[in-house]
Amino acid sequence: MHKAINILLILLAFSLMANAQHPNLILTQQAVKEIRGSLGKYPLLDQTVENYQNKLKQALETDILVPVPKDPGGGYTHEKHKQNGKELYMAGILFQLTGDKVYVDFAHRMLKQYAALYPTLPLHPERKSNNPGKLFWQGLNESVWLVQVSQAYDCIYDALSAKERAYLEEHLFHPMVQFFTEENVRNFDIVHNHGTWCVAGVGMISYVMGDLKMVEKCLYSTRLDGSGGFMAQLEQLFSPDGYYTEGPYYQRYAMMPFILFAEAIQNNQPEKYIYQFRDGVIAKASNAILQLTYTNGRFFPINDALKEKTYLTQEMICNVDIAYSRFGHANGLLSIAEKHGEVLIAKAGLEVAKAVAEGKSQPFDWQSIELKDGANGDEGGIGILRAGSATDQLCILMKYAGQGMGHGHFDKLSISMFDNNQEILQDYGAARFLNTVQKEGGRYLPENKTWAKQTIAHNTLVVDGTSNFDGNLRVAQQQHADCFFFETDKMNSQVMSAKDHHAYPGVKMQRTIAMLQDSEMQKPIIVDLFRVKSDMEHQYDVPFYYQGHLIATNFEYKAYKDLRKTMGSDNGYQHLWLEAEAIPEQGSAQFTWLNDSRFYTITTITDANTQLLMGRIGANDPNFNLRNEPCLIVRQPKAGNHLFASVIEPHGVFDPTSEYTAQSSSKIKGIEVISDTDDATIVRITSQQGKHFLLMVANDKAEKNALHSVDTPKQTYQWTGPFKVEIENMGLTH
Amino acid sequence: MHKAINILLILLAFSLMANAQHPNLILTQQAVKEIRGSLGKYPLLDQTVENYQNKLKQALETDILVPVPKDPGGGYTHEKHKQNGKELYMAGILFQLTGDKVYVDFAHRMLKQYAALYPTLPLHPERKSNNPGKLFWQGLNESVWLVQVSQAYDCIYDALSAKERAYLEEHLFHPMVQFFTEENVRNFDIVHNHGTWCVAGVGMISYVMGDLKMVEKCLYSTRLDGSGGFMAQLEQLFSPDGYYTEGPYYQRYAMMPFILFAEAIQNNQPEKYIYQFRDGVIAKASNAILQLTYTNGRFFPINDALKEKTYLTQEMICNVDIAYSRFGHANGLLSIAEKHGEVLIAKAGLEVAKAVAEGKSQPFDWQSIELKDGANGDEGGIGILRAGSATDQLCILMKYAGQGMGHGHFDKLSISMFDNNQEILQDYGAARFLNTVQKEGGRYLPENKTWAKQTIAHNTLVVDGTSNFDGNLRVAQQQHADCFFFETDKMNSQVMSAKDHHAYPGVKMQRTIAMLQDSEMQKPIIVDLFRVKSDMEHQYDVPFYYQGHLIATNFEYKAYKDLRKTMGSDNGYQHLWLEAEAIPEQGSAQFTWLNDSRFYTITTITDANTQLLMGRIGANDPNFNLRNEPCLIVRQPKAGNHLFASVIEPHGVFDPTSEYTAQSSSKIKGIEVISDTDDATIVRITSQQGKHFLLMVANDKAEKNALHSVDTPKQTYQWTGPFKVEIENMGLTH
Ligand SMILES: [Ca+2]
Ligand SMILES: [Ca+2]
Ligand SMILES: [Ca+2]
Ligand SMILES: [Mg+2]
Ligand SMILES: [Mg+2]
Ligand SMILES: [Mg+2]
Ligand SMILES: [Mg+2]
Repeated sequence: MHKAINILLILLAFSLMANAQHPNLILTQQAVKEIRGSLGKYPLLDQTVENYQNKLKQALETDILVPVPKDPGGGYTHEKHKQNGKELYMAGILFQLTGDKVYVDFAHRMLKQYAALYPTLPLHPERKSNNPGKLFWQGLNESVWLVQVSQAYDCIYDALSAKERAYLEEHLFHPMVQFFTEENVRNFDIVHNHGTWCVAGVGMISYVMGDLKMVEKCLYSTRLDGSGGFMAQLEQLFSPDGYYTEGPYYQRYAMMPFILFAEAIQNNQPEKYIYQFRDGVIAKASNAILQLTYTNGRFFPINDALKEKTYLTQEMICNVDIAYSRFGHANGLLSIAEKHGEVLIAKAGLEVAKAVAEGKSQPFDWQSIELKDGANGDEGGIGILRAGSATDQLCILMKYAGQGMGHGHFDKLSISMFDNNQEILQDYGAARFLNTVQKEGGRYLPENKTWAKQTIAHNTLVVDGTSNFDGNLRVAQQQHADCFFFETDKMNSQVMSAKDHHAYPGVKMQRTIAMLQDSEMQKPIIVDLFRVKSDMEHQYDVPFYYQGHLIATNFEYKAYKDLRKTMGSDNGYQHLWLEAEAIPEQGSAQFTWLNDSRFYTITTITDANTQLLMGRIGANDPNFNLRNEPCLIVRQPKAGNHLFASVIEPHGVFDPTSEYTAQSSSKIKGIEVISDTDDATIVRITSQQGKHFLLMVANDKAEKNALHSVDTPKQTYQWTGPFKVEIENMGLTH
Repeated sequence: MHKAINILLILLAFSLMANAQHPNLILTQQAVKEIRGSLGKYPLLDQTVENYQNKLKQALETDILVPVPKDPGGGYTHEKHKQNGKELYMAGILFQLTGDKVYVDFAHRMLKQYAALYPTLPLHPERKSNNPGKLFWQGLNESVWLVQVSQAYDCIYDALSAKERAYLEEHLFHPMVQFFTEENVRNFDIVHNHGTWCVAGVGMISYVMGDLKMVEKCLYSTRLDGSGGFMAQLEQLFSPDGYYTEGPYYQRYAMMPFILFAEAIQNNQPEKYIYQFRDGVIAKASNAILQLTYTNGRFFPINDALKEKTYLTQEMICNVDIAYSRFGHANGLLSIAEKHGEVLIAKAGLEVAKAVAEGKSQPFDWQSIELKDGANGDEGGIGILRAGSATDQLCILMKYAGQGMGHGHFDKLSISMFDNNQEILQDYGAARFLNTVQKEGGRYLPENKTWAKQTIAHNTLVVDGTSNFDGNLRVAQQQHADCFFFETDKMNSQVMSAKDHHAYPGVKMQRTIAMLQDSEMQKPIIVDLFRVKSDMEHQYDVPFYYQGHLIATNFEYKAYKDLRKTMGSDNGYQHLWLEAEAIPEQGSAQFTWLNDSRFYTITTITDANTQLLMGRIGANDPNFNLRNEPCLIVRQPKAGNHLFASVIEPHGVFDPTSEYTAQSSSKIKGIEVISDTDDATIVRITSQQGKHFLLMVANDKAEKNALHSVDTPKQTYQWTGPFKVEIENMGLTH
């Protein structure tokens, strides 16, 4: 009878725990077998394992320390608990790969210390009010810790006795889950990336402990009604294109809990079809974040962003490997994995390491792409045009998205340009030195608000020296710009156009960016048409934050040689030194600079009122927090309706190694407006050789079948669709 | 009888032409055999040959053009003749390697066109007066052309008939030799690198034509008395250490004719023992120029120098390969050859390609080294201290050489510092944009004189706001600084000290630079003792042109936030904006900046009079010719004798990829002077942990056996030799 009951219990347990084999979160039992059989075959895999072994070697030789939490970010106890989390993770992985009990022993001893400590802890003494932790000052760090440690526990689960497990769960994991889901429930249920880390951590440890009821709370909120939790986050935080409204810098970080928890769900409850959810939004987000990089690996630094961030960060190892494994084995991902020099220890990472070893790696497939913003994809977006191979790609980005919450910048219709693996027209990014205590403890600097967020800090229109929405976040957050059209079917003429009617009351803006390729030009040229409409007169400024060294202008200017003043007193202008100013002749002003091994020229239309200002960032910066970088500002001091029409042109070569310099001057002679009405704009660009580039752009109807007709005294221009490009060779001009 | 005479003539010819096998200049007949047998085996060799083939492919398919010379440097005819010279060279080489007559035919047809044109040419219409050419505006370019084309002719010599050769020699090569040795004889006989190119070209073509009498003129001047020519150049232009007085930028270029002509002499007249001449000065120069680079491959930019130049230039391919082959097969050279991706097609290049393929490559062996200046090695020199591997090397250079002729800067006792593959304390280099027409035609810019050459543009002492020798080249050229001692036997304490008594009349300067390593410090620290003596009071300025972003100071300063003025009106000060100034408290002022992934702090002693100025280059620069880079200036406004004592310290890590920042603050607490007399200086550096570093330096007697004794109220310090370092751990300071 006893025996029968035992058998029954065992059978029952088996059925309840059908999926409860271990490990089964990110690394699975099946993958462990395959990885064990693959060691010594695939360099990326071997390097990763060796790297883990080296890192753990020292840890195994020294005492385990689990200090009472005391310090904020960067301090000793903070860094120690972070490090312990990583060591637990690596120990778990290495136990699975090697079977060496020394790793179990290490992880178990450390976890027991945590189990002894955790129940005694009050809230962290340095806690932040809106998301406190116990081990860490921020609940965010505690969630990250749990995401790692749940994987460690999963890996050593079967090597512990039921009693040992019961002790850890009772004293550490259950209390931690309880803390997240009860005391700190506000953060658990919030639709925000902090919430994602939280539900991922709780969800993953709950899978390990077999608590599927708790997993449901992670997916649908503690209320189980979908008003919060992972599914709501997937629903609301990404646009249908997989764009995350705060921008790439924050999306990079947010991707990790999204993709790891999704992987855990897929491995444990494939019946949830998590990767199919919302037309595969996780795959889309995973692709979007990589498309939001340039060929040098850097994320586009829109909004608050540290420019140094590249796709080499830890988050992107998970993202790239899982994307490869789950979303179609695109060989372009492998070239990024090679740069990682490391893989995720899981089926995904094994597949990547194997494919790389088999020579399947190809350059990543950067594309011209539009990523719509907003949960419904109807709140503008980001447009990216590209041309050329990964080794020398011209890329221009226009931002016509929503504000992007508290980390958003007032930068409607701003552009950034990249070429030759360099930043050519920059977005300043954030004013911040990460984790550097002397710079306001590593937090955002005051100049992030007074400079980096302001409209004048961007390559876009500033009206009357003020920022979009007068710098008011609450107002800005309710509005967004709109895509007018985005057409990249023809490689030789890719064009995007966007509008904003909200950023400046009474002012309507439309910016059209065309990337036009022609055999006469070394690389495609960028045509930039910025159309402004207002019934009132305003001062209009359009800055270009060129990166590099000024080489020449075709206009005379007055330089402030020995006395320098600021450009203004607020809204960011107080941070700009006025270095020179000009009143150019009417026609086309040209401004040439050198960046790395190539020259660039802006050719811009000037009228009788145009002023050109040359500036440099760094005024009113007593703590030397800003980078002292230059700009050219095109100013119309008094205008109602106005069309800023410019060409931005890469040209020539500067090669000091072989002492070779060529084509340091522009191949463009000038640019003229043929017609500019509410229906359409036509401009003509003339090359030095006399070739004409005619660009016709719709301003009102962007439909593909809409017919446009423009009469001029000389000619009638007709076309169908949002734009047309005509290139005519008129012979040498005189 | 006829037959007998024929045989006799043949025998006679054979004896006269004993060495006249072809090719035998740089590429030799024996090497051709070996290279042919090695094709397909060594990637560097194959890549080079393939590269030549690709480059010539297009040339072979298009018409040969030999235009009448018309344009100056950068213009069409100039570039075309340059290109033709390179194509001739490659065609000759490829004929030897492949035996394909198409290359002979191409080279022969082109040479015939030159032979038809050359005798008709007057001096070049755009000629420079001091060294005119016929094919080129400068005789220099014509010499370079001949160095290449003589090798081409050597390669196809045996494939042409005697009649064909006679035509080319009569119409092209003899007239060209005549032009160089008669019309332009001044340049042929001059002891200057332009003369070296000239004798190399003439000497090499003369070897090919078998004119050994002309070779003698190349070696000993047209007067044959050694007053000019190659041997005089070897004797006078290099110091016994192989340092070239104009500095690395010019030495790099000059090495090519020196090493190529030497190789041709060795191959044709080994009895000259050219590589043994002057204790092997060619080998020493060849090594010196590589030691004058940092680990990023860049040449130290002292004097007029373009900073972008690296050891990847064409000259350095010859230099590295021949150095490997001739001077001891140092495997460290192979790592540079790998970066070249190309070898010299000759025995030297074959050996390099083979050794690389055999995996013999090792990191280049950068050393702490002193290179004495002056033909006799008694005119000061360059001292270079290094520590750490090629991947993360700390390097500091002090310049105490002669002026270096017209391209020299007024920079006595100036230092430059490098670390972590970056420039940390910069020498500005030259103000010039190579070959960029809009920037004064690519020539040196006016700011090269008004800024780059001035003393204030360097990390050294400026007295009373004037430059060394009041900026007078003629006076400066007659003087030099002197080495006091240079000691690098102990890796943990490398010290160099130099003196100058001429740059400022009535002011004696001594600078001592110590690189001290201790386990408490992450990397070695640099101690910088700048001792100044004068009977009169002066203003003393010592600038530090730090590269990177200011992070923190331990002193209060007044920032010129919204109005900015220049630091002075002449001698370079007019180009500096005053950004901030401070009167620090007495003790130790600290200034921390971030460069790439590491922090750096200067800790400097301050007294009651010390002023600190923060400046930025770029004032009075209406054409935007200067880079806007920052500096810290330590000023003693009124002092006779003064000791500037500073520590420059690399510390910490800034890693945005892994979001990790550590030790952004200095580990140094302060620096004090224990004693400073004409006999010796003693300073004590105290770390934050309370460790004391005591540095004792002789000021008068640098002999290794000289005994020094310094009494202070507390203690007597005694040591033997030029310096002593003592490290005492005194426990935590309070
Ligand atoms: Ca305002
Ligand atoms: Ca003077
Ligand atoms: Ca003067
Ligand atoms: Mg921004
Ligand atoms: Mg809408
Ligand atoms: Mg200099
Ligand atoms: Mg002397």
